[in-house]
Amino acid sequence: MITSADNEKLKTIRKLQQKRWRAKLGLFTAEGEDLVAPGAEYILRSGIDVEPDLLDAVSTLGSGTRVIGVYKQRWAEPSGDLLVYLHGVEDPGNVGTIIRSAHALADATVVLGPGSADPYSPKAVRASMGSIFARPPARATIDELDGHKVALDSGADRELRGLELARPLVLVLGSERGDLPEGVEGVRIPVHADSLNVAMAATVALYETALRMARDD
Amino acid sequence: MITSADNEKLKTIRKLQQKRWRAKLGLFTAEGEDLVAPGAEYILRSGIDVEPDLLDAVSTLGSGTRVIGVYKQRWAEPSGDLLVYLHGVEDPGNVGTIIRSAHALADATVVLGPGSADPYSPKAVRASMGSIFARPPARATIDELDGHKVALDSGADRELRGLELARPLVLVLGSERGDLPEGVEGVRIPVHADSLNVAMAATVALYETALRMARDD
Repeated sequence: MITSADNEKLKTIRKLQQKRWRAKLGLFTAEGEDLVAPGAEYILRSGIDVEPDLLDAVSTLGSGTRVIGVYKQRWAEPSGDLLVYLHGVEDPGNVGTIIRSAHALADATVVLGPGSADPYSPKAVRASMGSIFARPPARATIDELDGHKVALDSGADRELRGLELARPLVLVLGSERGDLPEGVEGVRIPVHADSLNVAMAATVALYETALRMARDD
Repeated sequence: MITSADNEKLKTIRKLQQKRWRAKLGLFTAEGEDLVAPGAEYILRSGIDVEPDLLDAVSTLGSGTRVIGVYKQRWAEPSGDLLVYLHGVEDPGNVGTIIRSAHALADATVVLGPGSADPYSPKAVRASMGSIFARPPARATIDELDGHKVALDSGADRELRGLELARPLVLVLGSERGDLPEGVEGVRIPVHADSLNVAMAATVALYETALRMARDD
């Protein structure tokens, strides 16, 4: 049982709260019984492997935690009939939620473009609810992606439902402040009030496109 | 300028963090520049109306806040062509997100059934991003609602897209543990992995039904 805060595993977990250490070590953490998955480098359980106070001290959850796992980051290739490209989506909770939606609704890979939040941050991992393990994200610039690119844009004339599907299809989502890559066709989700956030917009677009692609098969 | 933590307004704001005080006083709080709306009972601005440390001490945001408004709770009648009924949705963030989606996608009222989280809790208000003001929620039991009731149920045979629309339509959403009211027809959202949360399911169902109702008009 670990009884000192100077333990190397605890020190690593603390470092992994920082993006630069996650990038340097190529590792990330998952906290809590719901999130800890097989395949960890190591898992520390409160009261079994480590004194509870010491584990709580390296937790990113306000309430402390019962278990933390440390994992190798995995990065997928940006391939498949449907991809989600995130252009400057800075909120890690939104990034994690979109990874969850892409997995659930379309079994699709999420591609992180420059300026997007780290999908392996603790908040993003928690929001993904395990989908980060099932569907590891990819990294690319938009120019590196093949396929027909369509941006969700509340100012576009064309509606999402009127979109002609091509394969591969790349759904492009920007920050809520609205800047999108240039030269990409826009489609909009019909709304009564302009308050959909990027994760909701992604969920709707994934539902619509995945369902229609499945029917075409 | 308020300089004492014993000030009655500050004491009220602190009480309003608790559900029983919100119910007793019929008030709620909204925190932050993005959320504070016109029509407040009173608004306290950090450094203008109140000493910053004192306002931070009654904030529910970890980082403190620049402004807190206190408002009267408003409750709508459960009417309209499309309603969302929440059956035991206990997470206030999900309740707030569903109020936001219902407003944005369908301009619809959310009805809180027994066992659901208080939509006027600080977390729900924040997740609603102002939609709590634009579209106040209603309270009812499911038996009190008129209309055709359809439950989102991952185990149902019928698909959401195959649903015949009736008016009024009541979309019933349960907790993620899956208990739904008895005797209500179920429809499912086609998924690749069973990890949609209740707010995502609501967003998809609102998109699908509101769009089809608008086309039928």
